[in-house]
Amino acid sequence: MKQFISVEDVPGVPRLVDIALDYKHNPFRDKSLGTNKTLGMIFLNPSLRTRLSSQVAARNLGMEVVVFNIDKEGWQLEMNDGAIMSGNTTEHVKEAAAVMGQYFDIMSIRTFPGLKNKEEDYTEKYINQFIKYAGVPVVSLESATLHPLQSLTDVITIREHWQQPRKPKVVMTWAPHVKALPQAVPNSFAQWINAWGEADFVITHPKGYELDPKFTGNAPIEYNQDKALEGADFVYVKNWSSYSDYGNIISTDSSWMVTNQKLQHTAQAKVMHCLPVRRNVVIADEVLDGPQSIVIKQAGNRVWAAQAVLSEILKNS
Amino acid sequence: MKQFISVEDVPGVPRLVDIALDYKHNPFRDKSLGTNKTLGMIFLNPSLRTRLSSQVAARNLGMEVVVFNIDKEGWQLEMNDGAIMSGNTTEHVKEAAAVMGQYFDIMSIRTFPGLKNKEEDYTEKYINQFIKYAGVPVVSLESATLHPLQSLTDVITIREHWQQPRKPKVVMTWAPHVKALPQAVPNSFAQWINAWGEADFVITHPKGYELDPKFTGNAPIEYNQDKALEGADFVYVKNWSSYSDYGNIISTDSSWMVTNQKLQHTAQAKVMHCLPVRRNVVIADEVLDGPQSIVIKQAGNRVWAAQAVLSEILKNS
Amino acid sequence: MKQFISVEDVPGVPRLVDIALDYKHNPFRDKSLGTNKTLGMIFLNPSLRTRLSSQVAARNLGMEVVVFNIDKEGWQLEMNDGAIMSGNTTEHVKEAAAVMGQYFDIMSIRTFPGLKNKEEDYTEKYINQFIKYAGVPVVSLESATLHPLQSLTDVITIREHWQQPRKPKVVMTWAPHVKALPQAVPNSFAQWINAWGEADFVITHPKGYELDPKFTGNAPIEYNQDKALEGADFVYVKNWSSYSDYGNIISTDSSWMVTNQKLQHTAQAKVMHCLPVRRNVVIADEVLDGPQSIVIKQAGNRVWAAQAVLSEILKNS
Repeated sequence: MKQFISVEDVPGVPRLVDIALDYKHNPFRDKSLGTNKTLGMIFLNPSLRTRLSSQVAARNLGMEVVVFNIDKEGWQLEMNDGAIMSGNTTEHVKEAAAVMGQYFDIMSIRTFPGLKNKEEDYTEKYINQFIKYAGVPVVSLESATLHPLQSLTDVITIREHWQQPRKPKVVMTWAPHVKALPQAVPNSFAQWINAWGEADFVITHPKGYELDPKFTGNAPIEYNQDKALEGADFVYVKNWSSYSDYGNIISTDSSWMVTNQKLQHTAQAKVMHCLPVRRNVVIADEVLDGPQSIVIKQAGNRVWAAQAVLSEILKNS
Repeated sequence: MKQFISVEDVPGVPRLVDIALDYKHNPFRDKSLGTNKTLGMIFLNPSLRTRLSSQVAARNLGMEVVVFNIDKEGWQLEMNDGAIMSGNTTEHVKEAAAVMGQYFDIMSIRTFPGLKNKEEDYTEKYINQFIKYAGVPVVSLESATLHPLQSLTDVITIREHWQQPRKPKVVMTWAPHVKALPQAVPNSFAQWINAWGEADFVITHPKGYELDPKFTGNAPIEYNQDKALEGADFVYVKNWSSYSDYGNIISTDSSWMVTNQKLQHTAQAKVMHCLPVRRNVVIADEVLDGPQSIVIKQAGNRVWAAQAVLSEILKNS
Repeated sequence: MKQFISVEDVPGVPRLVDIALDYKHNPFRDKSLGTNKTLGMIFLNPSLRTRLSSQVAARNLGMEVVVFNIDKEGWQLEMNDGAIMSGNTTEHVKEAAAVMGQYFDIMSIRTFPGLKNKEEDYTEKYINQFIKYAGVPVVSLESATLHPLQSLTDVITIREHWQQPRKPKVVMTWAPHVKALPQAVPNSFAQWINAWGEADFVITHPKGYELDPKFTGNAPIEYNQDKALEGADFVYVKNWSSYSDYGNIISTDSSWMVTNQKLQHTAQAKVMHCLPVRRNVVIADEVLDGPQSIVIKQAGNRVWAAQAVLSEILKNS
């Protein structure tokens, strides 16, 4: 694997899932694989799970890790080619990325969408500038439109919790939130579940919350949440802002919050969420504190997803 | 040892002091004890000594260390059970602590009191929420009402500087300051000196600065600083805000500042302070720059205190 | 080597350059030299190259690294002796430096000039206070008036790119900028090129931008940029604020920006800059994106400069 930006960089999803689950059972199996290799972790935005789990994963492989909050410990980057830099940006990504590529063997970056300019976000301008100039493999720690480390984790977690011969029914449901959030997690989840191919996948949300069909593909969209949840084995809960009415909140309908009552429609579904989750807004306490929630185990699997990705890149380089 | 929140978690103070002093003479004796174990250091508040000394201590034991300024690099946590999270908090401690417990073998946390709500602070709501949900041993890097790594350091430092058969006279004196400070350091010092039992312990402060008797126990309180200092072998200087008139400054009497003149009453006492110290407000330059101050050596001992604590937890887990 | 604050700390520049270039070809040659040694990296100001390259260098030598953004993760330091600390400063450098000296084997610090008080800046008050109280070797990560890790890198880079028997002509040219910048980089470059002695060195800038002659020595100053650039083999581009009219911008003349047209006067000169560089203000895109720019390789060499310096200090201690 040469980079990890989307599922398209992955030769085979099931194989990567197997590698991750192997690491879960033997975390230090490849402790010398990363000897004398350094992972740079560049944050343009806050992070908890991604930041911490990737550090642990890299150290499990014997890599050095350097974390850099470029926005807080450095300065603002210029992303536009040809800019006359007489304003607030101190350094162009051309230099910043290329220089960091001199120091790191693998570079990983988190950057969020502005949610103002759809084209800028959906062309992945920011992370693509880093990829273009870094000169070393780049791993996304979440970009404007995708969050592949999260999605790999999600597939791992479903695989781990599903032992039956038939495909599980996986329902991704929109839920309300107080802020306008990126579409990165739901886009990416849809892309990965489709690429994995081992689930019956349904998406449910209020009208106007349709995601980019580039990612959702042939997954059926059901506007009635109760109906969508019927017989679900896994419920993947997430808020996102509108893609068509770009970056806006077009519903805050609290009846979409996931509660125990909602889950009664399901086949005792396991409940997943990428976290952080706003309790009693997105998902009710009774669900998160109940036996159907697997959100903590899911978050724990972030380590093995990151370790699988880093190891595959190390083996290739 | 299963956690380190107060002296009550310690099976025996003298033994822990011995372990620490052993590490001081042979820092890398247990370099492989922490192999493949990770210490998470979570800061909700600024720190210098605790942050740096604990990192060095963990590395001396071969542990990996991940530092996370959750307030600056992450987001604000919700601490209240049942909250409807439609406000400024992004993640509940139930998830944040449980997730970090998936990544770390030992979790350490610094959190300060608000100094507004005595009950909230003195029930140690914040750190107890972390302990409740972390699922791994928790080490306090200072909590609302206690600072056990500091206090262990203080006992180590007194032990190291006292060779006589009789018990030393240890006087903890309040001193003025410009800000309302927590009671954590003096509470904890009193608790540890009492538990240690190897000192004649006296507390002196202006009226109204009485600490919680839960920590000070039977230690005599002397309101006349000069009288308290008579014959002292160690003077432990610290400001704190009022416990009874909770969180308020009720005196700024500069005559309580520790000067060379004050020390004339003592038996050439060694002067201690947890640092940071505001010079010429809390303690005069002449004392800090003079031969009786041991504050730098005291701060240096923070490494060995942290190393002893981490090693005892590693050995138990 | 006992410290690294200026070229005067270096027994021989050519030998240090050789050591650095040796590390470039064999980065892990001395992987055990730093075993059980810790480098503290203290930032009072933002940094990208220095921060990241020094961490990589230290790890290449097997050192532990602890990074501390004292301004953001700690608190404000008092630098004035005798201060009554009743204001905004929480800790005196006397304690902060001495305490960090208890934890680290080598201490490295970045501190910028205020550009208000020439005497305060040029006596290097801040870094000298750290050196005075640290009690361990101090490495400058850039101080008020010098940036020796950058300058060592610059000499390494010129050496690497120059194979002819004659001395190269090296021209340091001022270029415009929108902010008042320190003189540290140009001071230091002049000091090192002079000490190295292997270049014909010319400085060019508008009148009023003369640097402190303590650093520029006998280097000729040419006020006509075109004339200065004639026959240049290396063009070192940098903005700085005025030394005589201290800290002020006295020209923003955009005709001093380095463009391809300017470079026509040179002997196909290699173009260098310490970065970050404001594109199309200091240097035009066409130069930075063209074949004469070696700024990325130059930045890459920061690792080997830092590694040479740390190794020499480790060998001495």
